[in-house]
Amino acid sequence: MSTDPLVVFTPSGKRGRFPKGTPVLTVARQLGVDLDSVCGGRGICSKCQITPGYGEFSKHGVTVHADALSEWNSVEARYDEKRGLKPGRRLGCQAQVMGDVVIDVPAESQVHKQVVRKAASARVIEMDPATRLYFVKVDEPDMHTPTGDLERLERALQKEWGIDEISADLTLLSKLQPVLRKGKFEVTVALHKSHTDNTARVIEIWPGLHEAGIYGLAIDLGSTTIAAHLTDLVSGEVMASSGIMNPQIRFGEDLMSRVSYAMMNPGGDVEMTKAVREAIDTLAAEIAVEAGIDAKLILETVFVCNPVMHHLLLGIDPVELGQAPFALATSDSISMPARDLDLAAINTRARTYVLPCIAGHVGADAAAVALSEEPGKSEDLALIVDVGTNAEILLGDKSRVLACSSPTGPAFEGAQISSGQRAAPGAIEAIRIDAETKEPRFRVIGCDKWSDEVGFWEETAATGITGICGSGIIEAVAELRMAGLMDDSGLIGSAAQTGTDRMVAEGRTHAYLIHDATAEGGPRITVTQGDIRAIQLAKSALYAGARLLMDERGVDKVDRVVLAGAFGAHISAKHAMVLGMIPDVPLDKVTSAGNAAGTGARIALCNVGARAEIERTVRAITKVETAIEPRFQEHFVAANAIPHKTDPFPELSKVAPLPTPSFNTGGRGEGEAGGGRKRRRRA
Amino acid sequence: MSTDPLVVFTPSGKRGRFPKGTPVLTVARQLGVDLDSVCGGRGICSKCQITPGYGEFSKHGVTVHADALSEWNSVEARYDEKRGLKPGRRLGCQAQVMGDVVIDVPAESQVHKQVVRKAASARVIEMDPATRLYFVKVDEPDMHTPTGDLERLERALQKEWGIDEISADLTLLSKLQPVLRKGKFEVTVALHKSHTDNTARVIEIWPGLHEAGIYGLAIDLGSTTIAAHLTDLVSGEVMASSGIMNPQIRFGEDLMSRVSYAMMNPGGDVEMTKAVREAIDTLAAEIAVEAGIDAKLILETVFVCNPVMHHLLLGIDPVELGQAPFALATSDSISMPARDLDLAAINTRARTYVLPCIAGHVGADAAAVALSEEPGKSEDLALIVDVGTNAEILLGDKSRVLACSSPTGPAFEGAQISSGQRAAPGAIEAIRIDAETKEPRFRVIGCDKWSDEVGFWEETAATGITGICGSGIIEAVAELRMAGLMDDSGLIGSAAQTGTDRMVAEGRTHAYLIHDATAEGGPRITVTQGDIRAIQLAKSALYAGARLLMDERGVDKVDRVVLAGAFGAHISAKHAMVLGMIPDVPLDKVTSAGNAAGTGARIALCNVGARAEIERTVRAITKVETAIEPRFQEHFVAANAIPHKTDPFPELSKVAPLPTPSFNTGGRGEGEAGGGRKRRRRA
Repeated sequence: MSTDPLVVFTPSGKRGRFPKGTPVLTVARQLGVDLDSVCGGRGICSKCQITPGYGEFSKHGVTVHADALSEWNSVEARYDEKRGLKPGRRLGCQAQVMGDVVIDVPAESQVHKQVVRKAASARVIEMDPATRLYFVKVDEPDMHTPTGDLERLERALQKEWGIDEISADLTLLSKLQPVLRKGKFEVTVALHKSHTDNTARVIEIWPGLHEAGIYGLAIDLGSTTIAAHLTDLVSGEVMASSGIMNPQIRFGEDLMSRVSYAMMNPGGDVEMTKAVREAIDTLAAEIAVEAGIDAKLILETVFVCNPVMHHLLLGIDPVELGQAPFALATSDSISMPARDLDLAAINTRARTYVLPCIAGHVGADAAAVALSEEPGKSEDLALIVDVGTNAEILLGDKSRVLACSSPTGPAFEGAQISSGQRAAPGAIEAIRIDAETKEPRFRVIGCDKWSDEVGFWEETAATGITGICGSGIIEAVAELRMAGLMDDSGLIGSAAQTGTDRMVAEGRTHAYLIHDATAEGGPRITVTQGDIRAIQLAKSALYAGARLLMDERGVDKVDRVVLAGAFGAHISAKHAMVLGMIPDVPLDKVTSAGNAAGTGARIALCNVGARAEIERTVRAITKVETAIEPRFQEHFVAANAIPHKTDPFPELSKVAPLPTPSFNTGGRGEGEAGGGRKRRRRA
Repeated sequence: MSTDPLVVFTPSGKRGRFPKGTPVLTVARQLGVDLDSVCGGRGICSKCQITPGYGEFSKHGVTVHADALSEWNSVEARYDEKRGLKPGRRLGCQAQVMGDVVIDVPAESQVHKQVVRKAASARVIEMDPATRLYFVKVDEPDMHTPTGDLERLERALQKEWGIDEISADLTLLSKLQPVLRKGKFEVTVALHKSHTDNTARVIEIWPGLHEAGIYGLAIDLGSTTIAAHLTDLVSGEVMASSGIMNPQIRFGEDLMSRVSYAMMNPGGDVEMTKAVREAIDTLAAEIAVEAGIDAKLILETVFVCNPVMHHLLLGIDPVELGQAPFALATSDSISMPARDLDLAAINTRARTYVLPCIAGHVGADAAAVALSEEPGKSEDLALIVDVGTNAEILLGDKSRVLACSSPTGPAFEGAQISSGQRAAPGAIEAIRIDAETKEPRFRVIGCDKWSDEVGFWEETAATGITGICGSGIIEAVAELRMAGLMDDSGLIGSAAQTGTDRMVAEGRTHAYLIHDATAEGGPRITVTQGDIRAIQLAKSALYAGARLLMDERGVDKVDRVVLAGAFGAHISAKHAMVLGMIPDVPLDKVTSAGNAAGTGARIALCNVGARAEIERTVRAITKVETAIEPRFQEHFVAANAIPHKTDPFPELSKVAPLPTPSFNTGGRGEGEAGGGRKRRRRA
């Protein structure tokens, strides 16, 4: 026994003695080392590649000789010839232990490999998808012990992979026999394991070893845009991200107008459901083309969305969500066939997982933010805000998490603003007003220069200056306050009061002129008193929601603020605080989580354990309903003022940029996939 | 404690002492007495009716006084006024125990009531359907603890009925909210409980108390006919039985010709699947009309069928069943949504259960026969034969059950017989040949008289004598043998050899003339040498199959024979033995099981436990494949002779009738629902 060779794995450090001649894959399995294999050790899938180390390993107390592993064999040679093995690599199922050895498992050979999310959050996604590939050799039929092909497939999966019980729908059964025979009873199956019970569904079956990969779609279904991330279910890699407009916009710009549409028009909900499902189906087909894969290899979809979109996606009339007590038809997560959502482009047996909703106004998108940002694991008290037409707000730390939503309205998205527009080239997205001269300088989407920099006007000539978007109007209002052009009640001064002819009369109130291109047939861009009132209402609602959670929690300050969604990726933290949108915290305690909802969807797609986790988390969250809470109204009124009359961070010579959004490629928002500025929705 | 009143239930005999004021329903539940309730004790469903007994019950040692139960209350009075309570009845949820009492639970108040099958078998069907009704009061939505309506429904079912976990598909979710509100949060749900795990599906939901009942279809899908029994899922009562032709007949009369059609015509299997599903859907719609119920109240279907029909129903190309090793795509039972079978007439969420197949040639119909006839519970050794184009044969007792199928061909069904025809009015179904005169007398379908009885010719004038059906040809061949007109090799004598001019020359062989109507333009009905050869082949195959099982079992005789299916209901046991179709046993040991496959389907529909039972049973059955067994060929050749040259039961003055078939209304066969002789298929 003691003379058996010692095998040490890195990076896990797991070790043990095994008889000479034991394949490395077998050793790894017995030690519980995470070494992948699809073909079960037949030397055909090449997933179990390892790198033996030779020489002195004093750390491990091992000296590895050149003959520590069996010699390079014909299976490895054939594979190397056909596909190429990296230098130093061996196939774990072929190489046998012959002496003490240190074996490194490279990241790509690990099943539970970690996909590092870029920047911001340190959290990584550990790959543990619900749907995985298994290569098996199925016993051929035998008249003496007549069992069905499905039952023999089940037995093979049981024997080789320890799968308890499988199920298959009729569409799979109808292809089972020809595929088994085409593969000479060697097949690859994609199994979807439930996270709630021990069953596994056969989603797809291919003859022989399937090498074209399997994919999933993480879909962030927003009121305005639908974004999808096509993800490799083995590597976790995002193959393509794409977004399209939510076609329901023609039934109503915001959620409540869509609920009204459903109320006023019999069958209106069915119409909207059809429209959004068709759009998702189109998006799925397009993203597969973009990534150059067969859409039928998409075997899973995960959805995050607000409650109204949730119901309209599922074919449930959202009418109850439009009136107290805002009852959801169902709040739990949903696992179901994707074809129940009429998704025809992807695999007909693909599964769909919809994250749970937190409450009638706090949806699966907020649950996804909680999954991504993990307030329940935070040491300090974090306020997480996902701003849109409704703001979803989470407040919590390890001890407790609270959630609410607040009806901010569409002003933050540039709607209901006199010169407002969507984020698109030509829109003013940032502005500074000189406290002395009261003169503005600004930046527009599509150009990196400020308007007082050389080359700005040349570079923007093509698009012109077309309007002001969400992030621009917030900065404008905050700058007006800091430049002394507006009082703390939000009232703008006249030209006489302020001493600048940027102040122009507008009926009985005044407006601040940012840019006048009427001479060239362009627009005249101003910030009016009405614009300021709209922003005040929106920011008061947001602040009041946060305050209400803080009251519930019994605190009057938070340790840090996370701005999630498109908005969070683009607004200036300083201006948000000047405006009183968010509670004051040190500027470096405000971070942007980028598209946290989309990230949450990706996590649930790549890690089946995360589904159980978010379901537990959501159950534990304390839900606070703003609509019935008298204090919300009090906070709302109290928050109307614009508190800071000077820059609260004078030590910073210029506005500190927010940390860049975390992983998502564009990081630009709810329901959006980084398609570039022209698609940017809110900021 | 000891002064608490004693409550004794009959017929169960369960007893216990309970505090005064305890409702009878509560007592019943605590004692585990089978007392039904849909509304959970709210006094609205009236399912919990009981009959208290008064006076001296020496058997139970109890004297019951007039005040043993609380007084008749307003709830009972209202119910009695509206619907009428039988004299002496009380509502178990309203009547409270006040003193020692003996309470009878009438059969209709028992959940697990027993539905007695008529005649033959003593077995009863115990009602324990997978789908049951539950009335619940659901908590109204509350903004302070926002959960979905589905989750509150689940909680109510958990609290009131102990249901662990429910699921609902999107079509149910989309109607959940309006139904809950229409019922003021009091609803009746139909739950389908899985027999393999602990989950329950919401199949339907109605506002308030649903009183229109719920129904299931037991479907016997035969090669020639499709029969359905519409069954009340509460009482077990068969509301209607109906059958239609299997439209696949246009693709091939027998199973193998349909398999050939699928082999020769790309898409042929899809065509056949579509045809049979449409026929079943039509049948379901028609039977609901016949029974006067809404087809959408049909919430379950159960199918039994042979392997080829099984695959064609499920949409699986049956090509593998046409060639060794006769591999089934799946052999296990199947639970799935009925809509996967395109059954649109019934409830969109109805479930389907398909019994397991035993082997590639021994189908779910044979499993249903095993469920109905229970060879595995037999004290003596039983041979069960379900005769058709293929005969399914079961042999067994408590110790072990064996099964095989044998390719008898269509001769028993009147095909490949010179004057053969289907069982229809005008067909000769019974015949006797006088051993002295060699003259025949016969009976035809549609007339109860023999041809030598007064009135026969008048009564048959309308139909005429048109041919000879399966049971007729079997009797004819056996009678020819007993009349000395045929030797033991099956060779018919000439007129000269036999001394009767009933023997007519037919090419180089002879034929026996039964009836000649050519003078009136009718047919000339003979039994030819070719007919006898066809019957010999068929009976040899059947006998060889039985012998093969007896060999496997190591016996050379059986204790009893059960003839199942249409054939079994109509052939004469004596003639079958004369012919050597079945092993010799005393005549009273041959019984007819009627439509045993259809009965098995009804059992599986009415009792969810029977599903687990037949799945276990099928796994334990020893499968014997006739196609690869050399001894089958030996037995087949050896069985060619026709052994008995005289009546083996001379003590019986006339042919003893078989016991009438058991429960099914018509008892006439595979895939048939007792529509009368015109539909009879095989005999």
